[in-house]
Parts: sequence; C-alpha cells; structure tokens
Amino acid sequence: MTIQEVWDKAREVMAPKCRACPECNGKACRGEIPGVGGIGSGSSFTVCREYLDSVKVLMDLVYEPSEIDTSIELFGRIFEVPFFMAPLGGMNGNYNGYLTDEGFANMSIRGMVESGSLAFTPDGPKDSLFDLQLPIIKDVGGLAVPTVKPWDLPKLTDKIRRAEEAGAVAVSCDIDSCGNLLLKKAGKPVYPQSQETMAEIVKSTSLPYIPKGIMTATAALRCADAGCYGIVVSSHGGRVLADSPAPCSMLPEIREAVGDRLKIFVDGGIRSGLDVFKCLALGADAVLIGRPYAIAAHGGGQEGVVLYSQKILGELRDVMVMTGCRSLADIDRSKLVL
Amino acid sequence: MTIQEVWDKAREVMAPKCRACPECNGKACRGEIPGVGGIGSGSSFTVCREYLDSVKVLMDLVYEPSEIDTSIELFGRIFEVPFFMAPLGGMNGNYNGYLTDEGFANMSIRGMVESGSLAFTPDGPKDSLFDLQLPIIKDVGGLAVPTVKPWDLPKLTDKIRRAEEAGAVAVSCDIDSCGNLLLKKAGKPVYPQSQETMAEIVKSTSLPYIPKGIMTATAALRCADAGCYGIVVSSHGGRVLADSPAPCSMLPEIREAVGDRLKIFVDGGIRSGLDVFKCLALGADAVLIGRPYAIAAHGGGQEGVVLYSQKILGELRDVMVMTGCRSLADIDRSKLVL
Amino acid sequence: MTIQEVWDKAREVMAPKCRACPECNGKACRGEIPGVGGIGSGSSFTVCREYLDSVKVLMDLVYEPSEIDTSIELFGRIFEVPFFMAPLGGMNGNYNGYLTDEGFANMSIRGMVESGSLAFTPDGPKDSLFDLQLPIIKDVGGLAVPTVKPWDLPKLTDKIRRAEEAGAVAVSCDIDSCGNLLLKKAGKPVYPQSQETMAEIVKSTSLPYIPKGIMTATAALRCADAGCYGIVVSSHGGRVLADSPAPCSMLPEIREAVGDRLKIFVDGGIRSGLDVFKCLALGADAVLIGRPYAIAAHGGGQEGVVLYSQKILGELRDVMVMTGCRSLADIDRSKLVL
Amino acid sequence: MTIQEVWDKAREVMAPKCRACPECNGKACRGEIPGVGGIGSGSSFTVCREYLDSVKVLMDLVYEPSEIDTSIELFGRIFEVPFFMAPLGGMNGNYNGYLTDEGFANMSIRGMVESGSLAFTPDGPKDSLFDLQLPIIKDVGGLAVPTVKPWDLPKLTDKIRRAEEAGAVAVSCDIDSCGNLLLKKAGKPVYPQSQETMAEIVKSTSLPYIPKGIMTATAALRCADAGCYGIVVSSHGGRVLADSPAPCSMLPEIREAVGDRLKIFVDGGIRSGLDVFKCLALGADAVLIGRPYAIAAHGGGQEGVVLYSQKILGELRDVMVMTGCRSLADIDRSKLVL
Repeated sequence: MTIQEVWDKAREVMAPKCRACPECNGKACRGEIPGVGGIGSGSSFTVCREYLDSVKVLMDLVYEPSEIDTSIELFGRIFEVPFFMAPLGGMNGNYNGYLTDEGFANMSIRGMVESGSLAFTPDGPKDSLFDLQLPIIKDVGGLAVPTVKPWDLPKLTDKIRRAEEAGAVAVSCDIDSCGNLLLKKAGKPVYPQSQETMAEIVKSTSLPYIPKGIMTATAALRCADAGCYGIVVSSHGGRVLADSPAPCSMLPEIREAVGDRLKIFVDGGIRSGLDVFKCLALGADAVLIGRPYAIAAHGGGQEGVVLYSQKILGELRDVMVMTGCRSLADIDRSKLVL
Repeated sequence: MTIQEVWDKAREVMAPKCRACPECNGKACRGEIPGVGGIGSGSSFTVCREYLDSVKVLMDLVYEPSEIDTSIELFGRIFEVPFFMAPLGGMNGNYNGYLTDEGFANMSIRGMVESGSLAFTPDGPKDSLFDLQLPIIKDVGGLAVPTVKPWDLPKLTDKIRRAEEAGAVAVSCDIDSCGNLLLKKAGKPVYPQSQETMAEIVKSTSLPYIPKGIMTATAALRCADAGCYGIVVSSHGGRVLADSPAPCSMLPEIREAVGDRLKIFVDGGIRSGLDVFKCLALGADAVLIGRPYAIAAHGGGQEGVVLYSQKILGELRDVMVMTGCRSLADIDRSKLVL
Repeated sequence: MTIQEVWDKAREVMAPKCRACPECNGKACRGEIPGVGGIGSGSSFTVCREYLDSVKVLMDLVYEPSEIDTSIELFGRIFEVPFFMAPLGGMNGNYNGYLTDEGFANMSIRGMVESGSLAFTPDGPKDSLFDLQLPIIKDVGGLAVPTVKPWDLPKLTDKIRRAEEAGAVAVSCDIDSCGNLLLKKAGKPVYPQSQETMAEIVKSTSLPYIPKGIMTATAALRCADAGCYGIVVSSHGGRVLADSPAPCSMLPEIREAVGDRLKIFVDGGIRSGLDVFKCLALGADAVLIGRPYAIAAHGGGQEGVVLYSQKILGELRDVMVMTGCRSLADIDRSKLVL
Repeated sequence: MTIQEVWDKAREVMAPKCRACPECNGKACRGEIPGVGGIGSGSSFTVCREYLDSVKVLMDLVYEPSEIDTSIELFGRIFEVPFFMAPLGGMNGNYNGYLTDEGFANMSIRGMVESGSLAFTPDGPKDSLFDLQLPIIKDVGGLAVPTVKPWDLPKLTDKIRRAEEAGAVAVSCDIDSCGNLLLKKAGKPVYPQSQETMAEIVKSTSLPYIPKGIMTATAALRCADAGCYGIVVSSHGGRVLADSPAPCSMLPEIREAVGDRLKIFVDGGIRSGLDVFKCLALGADAVLIGRPYAIAAHGGGQEGVVLYSQKILGELRDVMVMTGCRSLADIDRSKLVL
C-alpha cells in the first residue's frame, strides 16, 4: 500500500463529507459543519495553512554530520516522534459513517502506537464513544491520551478516573468545545473551566492534565498556575469561533510567557514534517495532527495511519538534515524567517 | 419566518437596486449611487469588510462561567444590546420604492424597540421624511434617535425642537452628508459644522447631541470640546468620499484621544455579532448597522427586523462565551490580534 | 460634449496604440513601447495606481465653511489649479498619428491656458517638434513650460534661449529621457546632468529651471544646490526603467530633504482630483497629468482638454470640502492614512 | 541568431522537461523533480521572482556622465561582467537528453569565456560528468569553477586535486546537495561540511574554495573562519528544501555579518541585468544564473550562451546609466527601495 493509494481510496469512501483533497487546507469544505470544514467563512481553518506557508525555513549544511534523533520525552515515556494524533470523533456525523467509532478507535490507537507515538482520543455527546476506547487503550498499555469534554466537575472527574483505570498516560480536556453545536443540540451542557476548577481537577488525579483549546498567553499562564502538565494550543480545527488566528502563530508569545512550566502541544493545519518542524521552531514541544489521520484511517486502516506517520517522520528527518538539527532541541527560532 | 426566508424574499423585492447578497460587502453594487453602493470604485465600502475580516479574535475558555450580559446604558436608558439601526432614507431613490418611507419607519422604529434597541432615523431633502417619523417615535416613548441633515442653524435647531417634542432620547446630525449628491441636486444646502456651531446646538437643546461622520481624533476632540454626548465614527456607508479608510480602523486612535468624554458609535460593514464584538474591542461603545436592516425590513417587515436583531445578538453572545467576556466591559483590545 | 463622449470618441480614434481604458492604469498596455505602456513588465506604470489607491483620505466636516481656493502661485503667476499637463510628444510614434504634433500643440497649450493652468510641452529627436510650439506659446503670452531633452550644453542652452524669446514662463528638462530608446535609435545623444552642469544652465537663463525625472532626496538636493526653481518627481511614465517605485511614494522623503527650497511637481498615474489631493498631501506643490490629457485631446480637441480639467477641478474641490481644506495650504499629511 | 529565436528553438527541443517559458519563474514546473522545478509546492523557486520583483530601483540622472565599467576582479583575474553560469548537470535527467553532458560542457564553458565570464561546472552521481569537463577547462586556460559534490574528504580532495591539475581558477562545493534525491537513489553518500572539515579542505588546496548553499549569516561566518575565499548564497534552485526564503533576500544580513572577509555570490531566479543590479545592491559581489543558460544552450549552443550573456550585460549597463552607477562599486543599497 502506498500513501497515494490510501488517499485515492479515502477520496472514494469519504464522499461527500470529506474530499481528501491533495492539499488539505479548508478551502473545499468551508463552513461545512457537521462535516470537516471551518466555521462560517472557514477562515479559522484556512488561516492555518496561510500562516504555515508564510513561515520560511533556513537551510544550514555547515555542521558535523551525525545521527538524527526525533525522540521526545513526555509523561515519563519516550516517543519516537514529536507528532501525535488529535482527538477525532463523529465518525457518523462529521464523517459519513463509513467507519464506526470503534473501528476508527482501533485503527487510530493501535496505528499510533505502532508509529512510536500515541493518539489523543475523543469524547462526545454519547458516553459510549469514550467508553469503547478504554479497553483498547488498556490493551496497548495505556498509550493514549483520552480527551474528555468540559463537563461539570463530577462527570469530568468520573471520566478521568476511568481513564486512570485504563492506564492512560495522561488526560486532556478540549475546553474549546463549549462552542460545539452538536453538544448544544444534544442538550449536553459543557462549560468554560476556571483556573480554580482546573486546580481541582489536577488535584483529583494522578494523571498529567492537558487542557486543549488555549490561544493566549494569559490563559496559558492560568493553566500553569493551576498545575497543568501541558496545554494544546488549538482553535478546535477552526470549528468553534470564526476569525481565529492560526494557533501556531500564537506559539512565540505563549512560549515566552510560560517558559518551561508547561509542555506545549499545538494543532491546526499541520500537514507535513516541514510543518512539524516549523511549529517546534515557533515554540511547541510537539504537535497534533487531525484530519489527515482521519483520511489515512479511512483509506488504509491501521496501516494507513502508520504509513502517514512514516511519511511525516521522513519529511521531518529530511528537514532536520537540511537545517543542521540533530535533535529536537536544535529546532529553534533561528531556523526560521517569519 | 426564518432569516433565510427574509433574505430570499428581499432578494426578490429589492431588485435591481439591492441584490441582498449572501455576503453584503459592497462588491456587487460598486459605484451604484443612487442605489446602495459605495462611491466611485466602491473601495470606501469594501474596505470595511476587508478590515473587519482581517481582525482576528482570541478564544479564551479559562474562566468561571456565568450569565452573559449584553446590555448598555445610553441616554440614561438601558438597552439590551449594543447595536442600533443606522439612519436609512431614500426608500424611493436608493431603494426601489417597494417600501414607502412611512412603512419603513414603522417597521424599523418599532422593530428596533422590540429588539431591545432603537433606530437612528433619517432626514432628507424633503421635510416630510423627517416629519412622518415623529408620531411613531412619540408612540414608542421616544425610543429613537432622529438624525437631521446639517442644515443652517435655524432650520437645524427647529428640527431638533420637534424631535424634543416627540420625546426622542437623543438627536444626531450626519454632517458627512455635505457630500450627498441628492441634496446638492435638490438645491438643499448643507454645511460643515464648526466646533462653535456644535456648541450652540448643544446649548440649544436638552437632548444629547451626536454628530455622525467623524473619522479623525482631531474632529472627535472638537466634538468633545463642543459638549457633544457622543459621535458616530462613520464614512456615510462609503458613499460620500472615495478611498476613505474603514471607520472601525480609526477607533483605537479616536478612543485614545477622547477617553471617556464621548460615547463612540461606529458604522460601516458591520454584518454579524462577531463584527459587533470586534468594533467594541477596537474602542466603540456601540455600533450602527445599516444596509442589512434595510434588507431585513424589505424581506420581513418589522418581524424581519427583529429576527435580524436576534441573529446578531445570538452571535454576539456566542463570541462572548468563547472569549471569556461576561459583559460588554470585558470586551477590549486584548481579545484581538490586529 | 460630455467627458464620456470624449472618451468614447478617443477609444475609436486612438486604436490600437491606446485603448482609452475606463481606468487608465497601465495594465492593458504593459510593455508597449513605442506605444503608451510601461517598460518591460509595465510595473513602473501600474505601481503608480496601486500606490495611489492604497493611500486613504480622512473626511473631516467639523469646520467653519468658507469658499474653496484651489489657486497656486508659480513663476510669479497665479494659476487657478494645481495640476498641469505633462509633456507629451510622439503623436506619430507612441500614438497613431491621428493628431499631428502641431494640432496637438494647439489643443493642449490653448486648452490648458483656458483651464487656468498651463502645459509642459515636449521636445524630441526632431527639432521641428520643439520649434513648432514656440509661436503658439508666444501667442498665449508664454503660458507653457517647454521641456527640452538633456542635450549637450550648447544645444540645450540654445533651445532654452528660444524658449525665452517665446516668452515662456519657465523651462524644464526631462533628464530621465536618457533611457529613451527612440532617441538612441535616432542617434541623438542625450546625457545625465551633473549639479555643475545644472548650475551652468541656471546661470545661463533668466527662466526658472525645472529638471524632470528626479526620484531621490539626494538628487533633489543637488538640484536645489544648483539653483533650480523646482523639480518634477517622475519616472517618465514608467517608460525608462523597470521596477521603479511610484514617484508619488517618494514625495515625503524628498519634501523632507528639500523643505521649501524647491517647488515640487510630481507625475505618474494621477487620474482624478482625489489623486491630486493625495499627491499634495504627500508633499507635492502641484502635479502633472499626462496620458489622460492625450486621450482628452484625441477625443475632444481643445474642448476635451478643458472638459477634463474641469472634471479634475470639480473632484478636487469636492475632496477639499469633505476634508476641511479651504486652500491648498491646508492639504497636508494629517489628511491621509498611509 | 536572435535571443527570441534561441528561446523558440529551446521551447521545441526541451519539451517536456522545460517549457522555456517567456518568464522563467518556477510556476509551470512546480514540483517537477527530476525536471527543472522547485521541490514540493515549488515555493522555494517562485519566491525568488516574487522577492526580486518586489525590490524597487531608484533612478538618478543627476551626475557627470562617464564610461560604464562592469568589470570585477575575482581569483586574481578580471572578468568583464559580474554574472557567471551556475553549475548545471543532469542533461539526461533534469533535462531530456537533447544535449549530452559533454556537448553542454563545451557550449557552456567556452560560451562563458567568450562572454568575458566563466561557468561554475557540475559534478554528479557518476564521476564521468566531472571528468569530461577537465580537458575543456584546461583548454580554456582554467577559466571555470568546478563544483564538486560534498563527498567524504578523500574523494572530495581527490577531485579538487584534479581541478588544480586542469588549471581551474577556483573550486566550489554545493554542500546543499545533501538533499539531492538523485544522489540518495544512486547510493552516493554526501555530507554536511563542518567548519573544521572546510578548514582541512582549504588547507589541502591552492585553489580558492567556495562553498555553495549558504543561507544564513551564522553559516557564512563559519565559512569565513574556515578560510574560504567566498560563498554562494543559494537554495539550490529551490530544489532541496521546501519553503526556503529567496537567497537574495538573505544578502543584507549575510553581508553585514561577514563584511569583506568573503566574496559573496548569489543565485536563484536571476533573469535580467536589472536582477543582477538588485542582487549587487543587496550585498552580493556577483551572481550565478542557472536555468536561463540551460535554455540558451539548448536553443543556440555556444552562440546562444554568448547572446544571453550580451543581453544581460546590455540590461545591466542600461540600469547603471539610469541609476548613476559608473562601476560596480557604485551599486549599493541607496539605489533600492525595499
């Protein structure tokens, strides 16, 4: 199976919800919610590609060659790559139901572990989505980050407890799903999360806690003060607030504010190893990739997921060679022209 | 009735003067005066949308949730929303005569009061336009802001006196209609208004006086020194001077100059609750919306006006939730990326 | 005769050399030399419109109304308007020969005097072009500025002497025609002009001397030190050097360097009274307009020239009303957003 | 033979690998590797033209005319022009085999010497490409700069020794070909080159050593510290790393860092004498031109190469006249608007 075959197959089976475009940039699917598009004019999605394309990378071959190391330590574990799968739910809503949630969970969780990485896994209006993933996570030794919706505190901590029981290495909460229409329609109230609430959550669990949907230095500092392990700088794929800036464009400011107090993940429009490199150079520790992994799973199942990971890794290694970066620590702002 | 039905009906009945475009941005009607377009190349209209689209909004969900309050105090009254209807005249000139001026006055004044807001109402070459609105304004308890043309002082103060008698809560004057071709052709002389003249007007009435058509910090300071209650930052819908900048782009400079000495209203290309939010964050106290309310009235009468107000309010509330703003006072520049 | 009729007629008689486009911006005629286009990609022409379109104008109606005065003192004379005709030669080369050089000279020189202005008149490879204009200039009391090519000193001063004899109010020299291919092909050598040479020219004549084709503050200072009366900031219509910036974009820097030591004229893409206003606000004392006057003359003869002048004047007056400028002295940078 | 005929012929014989476009800007051939395109989206190629087009040039005719001198001293020799041919290999891979490597070597090396310049000559996966050029180089008195691939030290120094024996005036090494897929596929390992390795190379040869593929001030300083004679600022034609900035855009920073310690060459999108002028004004001593010389050779052989050189020289001289530059030393940043 080749990546091209995976994409060709995906294009066939994902219609009409996703077109598996050669360039996944949010243009063809503008405004398609449910579906895979950005909200309104879709600019919160398209701006991600525009920003990343505008960032230029500086070649540097004047260095002593050595092995390339793309590994990263997180949650006390070593991962082979600094890119992870973003939580992707709604196989029968945003996507067309070709895959079941359980089918996708198997492909994605196992595929990412096989990739030397892991998946952030989704939650949704129905509890069954969250629950069906727990046995799979347990089966892979906990190598996943369950992402719960920002429910009220009792419901939230209950779900975290079940993640603990499955042995998950960390837990995330996409607080930006406050703007999610599906949850509104389903009568499932979700809430913003104050620093105080976050502190309670952190205290309630042994797992590293990673709020997702942080876009400002101020909010990031509140997460740090609450004792969070990390954050995901994210605009929820451009699906909850129109005219958001590109999450990656906020990285320098956020990193400067929090220093090393938080691990910083970022998502939004990341499509290549070159993009991963740019995000790390802008200030992220690691990135999440969403839609392309959905395409890879639709077109190639677990194997498609692994193939896509290998493609990204190969590109990242190539860029590291061409820029004189031997490990992720070498990837910094001096490698970019903004 | 749905908003979509209102717009579909409007598209039918407004032709050929207004196309009720899905996106009302000044492109289809460039240069159409009389009509609804911007003057010349139309850039003074289109630049409003370009500027507003370029302003990015920062999500922030790290806060303690509470009720959203969109109310605002103006003229000693509380309004439920910070958006008002701009003065819209010329139903049988700029528009195609499908609505009479009186019909539109009823729909707009009553519709805005029903929306928890009010309408700025128009003046024109014929005195009858101004006069026919006074009984309606009286009937709604004065909840409107009659906007007089910048006539010579005797005529101007006479019209203000009649507005007082109708119980209007305030009075405005669109001094930028000096560039209005219809007034020129009708042989109705209008004039710029010096600070001294403004001071005389302010002294002559008990009503708050709000000059409309201010674009610079210098002019705003003169209005403050003249004792005006507020100003409308406006380029007259881009209809009187080609290559004007977007009024909302001037807000930061004007607010910095006048501080709290003036209430600042702004109009020009505002089409959504997100745009209202952006204008408030840029420095406005409240906004005026013009053309879309004309479309709403043509397509749905008073009910259309109310429906459109509800749509804008709903959007504004959503953005406030997503940005951590509980009241209008929380909406400031820190919420934007310019 | 209306301006529209003038342009319609011109479109008919000027083909194929000039298309008399509704918007004269250098796009349709890119690279057409001979012809009316800009050199190479044409960007030195098109950039003029792009720059002028990007300059925004600030409305200001808070002032005491009074009469508008557009007059300007130059060469000890008062002109009614601050715009003049640029030197336009080559009726049978750049244009299609529909007008003779003599016919055009009569229309343009007399038309501009009738407009309360004057024409800068051309020189060319054949001496006859320069000579045929002298009797006409004499006939209108010297109200023209003959523009000689940068010949060697004896030939140049001889031509200036003949301009003096015709009573011309001033004399110009388009030193930027060094890059003119027609002169090269005709074996007529032209030369750059050093400050020392300029000083000799100034000393040799009683007429104000105005070099044309200055683009930098450094060169402008040399002209001032040489005793020149003024300069024309110009890129020769974008016809002699590819990738020149817009002349008007250089005005602020040049004005700051020379202060009041020189009268500053500018040309390049000026098409409306609004453009005249922008150039004056950027630092020019007056402007030259070229191609549109050629169109006006082709389509309407002397009357076309006058009609076009009236159109520009009307637009300029309207902008002055809308911006609170009562005389040209009021037009400054505070009226613009760059 | 005219330049137009050369290009017309080239268009015929180069298909489908190169289209010999009227404007060679990397758009038609985006992503075509093998072929002549830029890698991936092709932006590392197209950005060169975009940047160069954005640089504006300031006319200045206020100076004492004199002869124009375009000569430059390099390697103790005087060359008539400051532009050279970039190393171009792969006649039967990137190009379509219409020319043999030996045929092209003769045309290019001899054509450049006839142009008063010289060619940087290529190396490749097969040693024969390098070897076949040596007798030709010897025959023209060493007037070429053999460019070796960044092999391991023994192989590299051996090739340099053979370049010395052929009498070459200097030697280059395109260290950026680390990203070259053809070399990877051919199992020919190439390596980054540390400052220490460069210092060894410099010590091992009497020839001036010029690393090619430097994009940062940091890397340039390491080359200077290693004792290199010069560098070629280059992104390998945009073929080895996506989203590289335009090499010429890095010139000011690099020149400021190294001062006069290195001769700075630059390549990437240079297509005219105006572009040569811009690159020198930005900080380069001289430029390399690649693809257009390949087109010239395909369409006109050695004569085509010379014709193209003459075209570039004529354009450069014209720009120097129009900007008041009598020698290359006069070409500096004051001539540009960035």
